[in-house]
Amino acid sequence: MTVKVGIVGATGYAGAELVRLLLQHPQAQIAALSSKSFENMPLSEVYPAYTGFCDIVCENQSACVDKSDVIFAALPHGLSEPLAEECLEKGKKFIDLGADFRLESEADYKEWYGKNYDCPGIHQDAVYCIPELFRGKVEGKSIIANPGCYPTSAALGLFPALESGIVEVDPIVIDSKSGATGAGRGLSQTTHFCDLNEGFSPYKVACHRHTPEIEQSLSCAAGKPVKITFVPHLLPVNRGIISTMYTRLAKKVLLQEIHEIYCEKYQNEPFVRVLKMGDTANLKNVRMTNLCDISLHLDARTNTLIVVSAIDNMVKGAAGQAIQNMNLLFGLPETTGLQLVPPAF
Amino acid sequence: MTVKVGIVGATGYAGAELVRLLLQHPQAQIAALSSKSFENMPLSEVYPAYTGFCDIVCENQSACVDKSDVIFAALPHGLSEPLAEECLEKGKKFIDLGADFRLESEADYKEWYGKNYDCPGIHQDAVYCIPELFRGKVEGKSIIANPGCYPTSAALGLFPALESGIVEVDPIVIDSKSGATGAGRGLSQTTHFCDLNEGFSPYKVACHRHTPEIEQSLSCAAGKPVKITFVPHLLPVNRGIISTMYTRLAKKVLLQEIHEIYCEKYQNEPFVRVLKMGDTANLKNVRMTNLCDISLHLDARTNTLIVVSAIDNMVKGAAGQAIQNMNLLFGLPETTGLQLVPPAF
Amino acid sequence: MTVKVGIVGATGYAGAELVRLLLQHPQAQIAALSSKSFENMPLSEVYPAYTGFCDIVCENQSACVDKSDVIFAALPHGLSEPLAEECLEKGKKFIDLGADFRLESEADYKEWYGKNYDCPGIHQDAVYCIPELFRGKVEGKSIIANPGCYPTSAALGLFPALESGIVEVDPIVIDSKSGATGAGRGLSQTTHFCDLNEGFSPYKVACHRHTPEIEQSLSCAAGKPVKITFVPHLLPVNRGIISTMYTRLAKKVLLQEIHEIYCEKYQNEPFVRVLKMGDTANLKNVRMTNLCDISLHLDARTNTLIVVSAIDNMVKGAAGQAIQNMNLLFGLPETTGLQLVPPAF
Amino acid sequence: MTVKVGIVGATGYAGAELVRLLLQHPQAQIAALSSKSFENMPLSEVYPAYTGFCDIVCENQSACVDKSDVIFAALPHGLSEPLAEECLEKGKKFIDLGADFRLESEADYKEWYGKNYDCPGIHQDAVYCIPELFRGKVEGKSIIANPGCYPTSAALGLFPALESGIVEVDPIVIDSKSGATGAGRGLSQTTHFCDLNEGFSPYKVACHRHTPEIEQSLSCAAGKPVKITFVPHLLPVNRGIISTMYTRLAKKVLLQEIHEIYCEKYQNEPFVRVLKMGDTANLKNVRMTNLCDISLHLDARTNTLIVVSAIDNMVKGAAGQAIQNMNLLFGLPETTGLQLVPPAF
Repeated sequence: MTVKVGIVGATGYAGAELVRLLLQHPQAQIAALSSKSFENMPLSEVYPAYTGFCDIVCENQSACVDKSDVIFAALPHGLSEPLAEECLEKGKKFIDLGADFRLESEADYKEWYGKNYDCPGIHQDAVYCIPELFRGKVEGKSIIANPGCYPTSAALGLFPALESGIVEVDPIVIDSKSGATGAGRGLSQTTHFCDLNEGFSPYKVACHRHTPEIEQSLSCAAGKPVKITFVPHLLPVNRGIISTMYTRLAKKVLLQEIHEIYCEKYQNEPFVRVLKMGDTANLKNVRMTNLCDISLHLDARTNTLIVVSAIDNMVKGAAGQAIQNMNLLFGLPETTGLQLVPPAF
Repeated sequence: MTVKVGIVGATGYAGAELVRLLLQHPQAQIAALSSKSFENMPLSEVYPAYTGFCDIVCENQSACVDKSDVIFAALPHGLSEPLAEECLEKGKKFIDLGADFRLESEADYKEWYGKNYDCPGIHQDAVYCIPELFRGKVEGKSIIANPGCYPTSAALGLFPALESGIVEVDPIVIDSKSGATGAGRGLSQTTHFCDLNEGFSPYKVACHRHTPEIEQSLSCAAGKPVKITFVPHLLPVNRGIISTMYTRLAKKVLLQEIHEIYCEKYQNEPFVRVLKMGDTANLKNVRMTNLCDISLHLDARTNTLIVVSAIDNMVKGAAGQAIQNMNLLFGLPETTGLQLVPPAF
Repeated sequence: MTVKVGIVGATGYAGAELVRLLLQHPQAQIAALSSKSFENMPLSEVYPAYTGFCDIVCENQSACVDKSDVIFAALPHGLSEPLAEECLEKGKKFIDLGADFRLESEADYKEWYGKNYDCPGIHQDAVYCIPELFRGKVEGKSIIANPGCYPTSAALGLFPALESGIVEVDPIVIDSKSGATGAGRGLSQTTHFCDLNEGFSPYKVACHRHTPEIEQSLSCAAGKPVKITFVPHLLPVNRGIISTMYTRLAKKVLLQEIHEIYCEKYQNEPFVRVLKMGDTANLKNVRMTNLCDISLHLDARTNTLIVVSAIDNMVKGAAGQAIQNMNLLFGLPETTGLQLVPPAF
Repeated sequence: MTVKVGIVGATGYAGAELVRLLLQHPQAQIAALSSKSFENMPLSEVYPAYTGFCDIVCENQSACVDKSDVIFAALPHGLSEPLAEECLEKGKKFIDLGADFRLESEADYKEWYGKNYDCPGIHQDAVYCIPELFRGKVEGKSIIANPGCYPTSAALGLFPALESGIVEVDPIVIDSKSGATGAGRGLSQTTHFCDLNEGFSPYKVACHRHTPEIEQSLSCAAGKPVKITFVPHLLPVNRGIISTMYTRLAKKVLLQEIHEIYCEKYQNEPFVRVLKMGDTANLKNVRMTNLCDISLHLDARTNTLIVVSAIDNMVKGAAGQAIQNMNLLFGLPETTGLQLVPPAF
C-alpha cells in the first residue's frame, strides 16, 4: 500500500519537515503540495536543501486535496476547519497540525483563540491524538488533531504520574524551553539572529495558547480537572523542547517506584525512552527523531517530583507525530518511516 | 584614593572578569595576580584578548597578598579559609568569590560541601553580602562572602515578595538557566563545543550547592525558614542567567500592587531595573553589566506570582558584585567603575 | 570641552552602537537622536538594554542637526549627501557612516552604486579617513567619510605590505567573514535565526560594493592601481570580521622582516596590535573594542604572504572608528572614550 | 548480502557517525566495535543519543577484526598500518579514515607526518578514493584510504576546472572553514564552548597536513604538479565545510561554459549538486548528508574563477564517503544507505 499525501501549508517549517520525513517513508508518497505564499514555485526554491529531493511545484489547496488520500494541514488557526470539511466531503482523511480541533471544549477554544467553531458539525469526526496516550480513540475518526509541541512534551512527561495518583493535581508548574523553529519561518525581531543569539527569555508568561491543551490531557490522566502554570521560553538553538515539570507527591513513594510506573506505562512504546535513574534528559539526544526522552528526579526536601521531558519540537512535536498518526489512521505500524537515529552531534 | 587589588585564582573566568572590570575602575589598581596553573606566565598569554591591557605575570599567593590592600579569591571551595586567615593576619581585606564563607550555618556547610570549617575563628569577621539586600551588615567586617550567581538572581528576584508577605513560603520553585561561563574555564565534555551547541539540559536537579545559599537569603526575607525546589540548566550561550521563579500568593493582590512593592524596594538601587508591567526580562539586556532586570507576572488562574530575573552571571553574579562589595568596604560609591552600558547586540 | 553629538539613523545597529560608546565618552554628549522608523519613540523602547541609559526620544533630522555640533549619519546610500549639505550650511561637522563620500571617483560611485553624486559641490569638503592611514588628510575638512567594515579590515591588514613593496599588486585575494550585525537590524531570511544558526556561506561573491573602496586604499598604499578579488561570508556570530588575505611576495624576504615592517608602521597606533610571530588573529580578542589585530604568515612553498586581520565590525568597522574620527576632527586625543578592554569570553 | 562491519576507534566522532549511518544501511550490519578509551563500555554510554539503537559493548581490536568482513579504522595517524596488515592477513577488507594510506609518496608522508611507512609492503594493496574521481582505481584493492574532509571538498570543487585546462595551476588559494566536529571529541581549549562560541579564526595557516593530500588530487586532475596555498578556519557550528577556492583563468571563457563542464563531469553523480548559476553553496543545505554542493563564480575584473564547495565534514568528509567506498568495494550501488535528505533547518 502507498498512501498518497497532500500537504497544505507546505512551505512553513512543519510542512517542510513533513516533506523531509515523508521522502523517507516507504509507504507514503507526496502527491501534492500547496502554499499560499509560494504558489507555483517549486518547494526546492524555498528550501534549496531539498533540490533534487523534492522539486514539486506548490499548487492551490483544492488541487492538492484532489490528488491525495490524506491531507496534512499546517495552517494558522481558523483555516483548518473549512479545509477539513472539504476533505470529508471528498472522502479524504485529514490531519491537522494546527489548533482548530485540539480543544474538545468550544468554550475553551473561544476563550483562548477568540472565536467559535466555524464548522461545529465536523468536530464529532475529529480526535486529539498523542498515540502513546490516546490511540484507542482514533478508530472511526477521519480527522486527527495533531497535538502541539509543548503539550506533547508535557503530557508524555506527566501522564503516568497523574494517572497513577502519586502526585497532587495542584500545584503543577511546567517550565518549557523551545528551539527557534517553534516560532516558525516568518520573520520577526524576536527570531532575528542578532537578537536571539546569545539571548534567552521567557515569553507569553502564563498566557500561552497551549495551556488549555495541556490541561485537557492532564485532566484526562488525573480523572479530574487540572490547572497548570505554564511558562515557555525561547532557546537559541534550532530544534528541541525541554520541559521541566514540578509536582507535589500525594503520598510517600520512592523514586524507584515512580520509575517503575513510568517504565511500565511506556514499556511497549518505541518512541518513549524512560531514562535510567540518575540520568537527565537532554534535547541533544532526540534531535531529528520522533523520540521523547523522560527523566525522573525526586526533591525529597520539598516532596517534589521533577519530570524532565525532551522532544524534537519539529518531529515528535509536529511532523513526526503527524506521520505517526497517519500510520495509525491507515493501519500501518506506527514506526513506519520514523525509525530515525538521533545524530550524536 | 587608589585601592591596591590582588587577585588569587586570576586565570579562572571570575578572575579574568575581575581584571577586565578593574582595568576600567578609576580608584583601583591591580597590584598583583596569582595563579596555580599559570604561575610565572603573563595573564595575556592565557587570555590573548588582554594583550597590552594586562600583561602582569602571575605570582604565588603570598607575594600577591603582600602587595595588596584587598584580595579577591576565586578558588575552589575549601581553599579560601586559610588564605583569608593569612590576609587577616597581614591586615588585608578579603573578598571571597568562592563558597567558604557563604553559609552562616556550619551544619549546612558540612551537609552540602562535605566538610567542617577549617578556620572557624574567622567566620565572625565575615559577612555574606548582596549589597542591595545586606549592605547594612558590612560595617566592621574584613571578609566579604561574595554571593553565588544563582543565589544573586534568586534573592534579588524574590526578596521583596517574601519580605512583604504577599507570597507563601511554600511551594517555591526556582528554574534557572545559566550561560556556559558559569561552568568555568576548565575543560569538560559538558562544555565541549559540539556537545553544548544545539543542546540544552538541566543538571544537578534538586541537588545543586547553591540551594542552601538561596534558602538562607529567602529565609531572611520571610522571617522564617524557607525551603525551595531549585533546578539549574545549562544554556548554549556564554553569559547570563535567567531565573524563572514560581510562588503562590498569600492573599488577594493585584499585579500593580506587587509591582509597586518591587519599585519601592529598589527605587534607589542603580543596578536593579524593575521592568514595567508587560515587559519580560531577557539576559540579552544585562550582558557585560552589573545590572539585574526583574519582571513580574501574575497567573491569576492558579494564583501564582511568577518573577523573572536576569543577570550577567560573570558580572552581577561574580566579578561585578565583588567590586561593588569592594567599593562598599572601602567607602567608595557602590557604582564606581561599574557604570557599564549593556551592548544592544 | 564637550562635543554635542547628533545621530541620524540612530535606531540602526551602527547608530545604536554609537550611542553605547558615546555614553562612555568623557567629552561628548548625545544632544539628539533621529530615526525615520521610530520617530517620537524613546531609543530604549527599540533597544530595551538601554533603559535608564538612553531614553532620548527620536526626533526628525533637522531638529537633530540644530542641536548638535557634529552629526553622525548612519543611513542607506544616497541619503547622506543632502543631509551633509544641510549640516555644512548650518556650520556643523558631518561624519558619514554610509557610502556617499567614500569613493573619490564619481565614476566608481556610479558603477557600484548606480547613481551620480547628488551634491558634487560638497565633495571637496569631504575626506575618507582610516585614522591610522589617512589622518593627515583631515585638516580643513568638515565631512568625514567613515570607512566600511570590510575595507577597514583589509586596508589596515595590507597597507604596510603594499606600501613597502614587498608584495605584488596582483593577484590579491581577500576572503572575509563577518558577523551578522553587519547585515543590520532589518529582517531578512538570511539573518533569520534558524537559517543562519548552524549555517555558513559566502554572499555577493566578487560583486560586493566594498570592493572599489578597498581598492582605493590599497592603490594609495601601492602607489599604483590595485585590483582585488573580494569574497565576503556571513558568520553565525553577532560581531566581528576576520579577513584572510593572500598576496604574492615581490622579492625574497623573511617573515621576520615583514613583521618588523608592520611593527614599525603601527608602533604608535594604540588600536592596532601586530601579533607576535606564531600567533593568529581571532575575532574573539577584539570584540567590543576599537582594536584591529593583525597576524602575519608566510607560505614559503608558494611564496605567499598571508595576512589575517580581526576587528569588531560594529566598533573599529563602524561606530568606534567614527568616534575616533570625531576625536580627530575636534582635536581630542584619538583614544578618548575608546579605551575599551575586550572581554575574555 | 549483508556486510559485517567492524569499527575500530568507534567512540571518536567519525566512528560514532559511521554507527549512525550504518544503522540505516539495508545491507550492512555492525558486527563489532572497538575503542581504547572506552573498552568494555556500551557505545550508548558514551553517546546517550544512541540508547536503544546501538548498545554494543566496545571490545579490543582483534576481536573486532575477527567478527567482521570489513574494518573501518578511525585512528590517529600511525596506528592504521599495522591494523591493516592484520586485516589483510585475516582476509578482511580495510577502510582507513586516517591518514596512513592517503599519500602515495612516502617522502611526502615523511615530510608532513614526520615518519616513514611502518608497513611499506601493503601500500600496493591500498588506493586513495574519492569515488566520483577515482572509483576506477579500486578494483583489486583491499585497502581504501578514505580521503580527508578538506581534501574532499577541495578536490571535488577544483577537479573539473583543472582537468579541462580552463584554469592555471598557479596560483591556487583554498580558504576553507570547518565546523567543530572536525576537531574531534577530544577536549581542548580551542573547542571549549566559551572560546569557540562567538569566536572565529584561521589555524595551522599554510601548514595543515591536508595540504599534500589536496595537491595530490589536483596534480592528478591537472596532469602536472600543483602547489596550493591552503588555510583552514574553525567555525562555531557543529558540522560542515565551506571551501572558497580561487584560481586564475587560463583562457577567455564564459561562466556558462565552465558551468557546462562541471555539469557534464558530475551529471551521473548522485552526491554532487552543481548549483545553477547565480546560486551560492551553503553548508546548511548539505548537513547530515553525503552531498557536495558546488557553486561557480567568475570575477571578470581579475580573471578569477571562484569555486565554492559545501560538504558535511562528518558525512561526505568522513563516515558517509567511507560507506560509499565500502559499497564500491562490495559491489553494492554506491548510494546504498546514503540516500539522506538534508534537513531544511
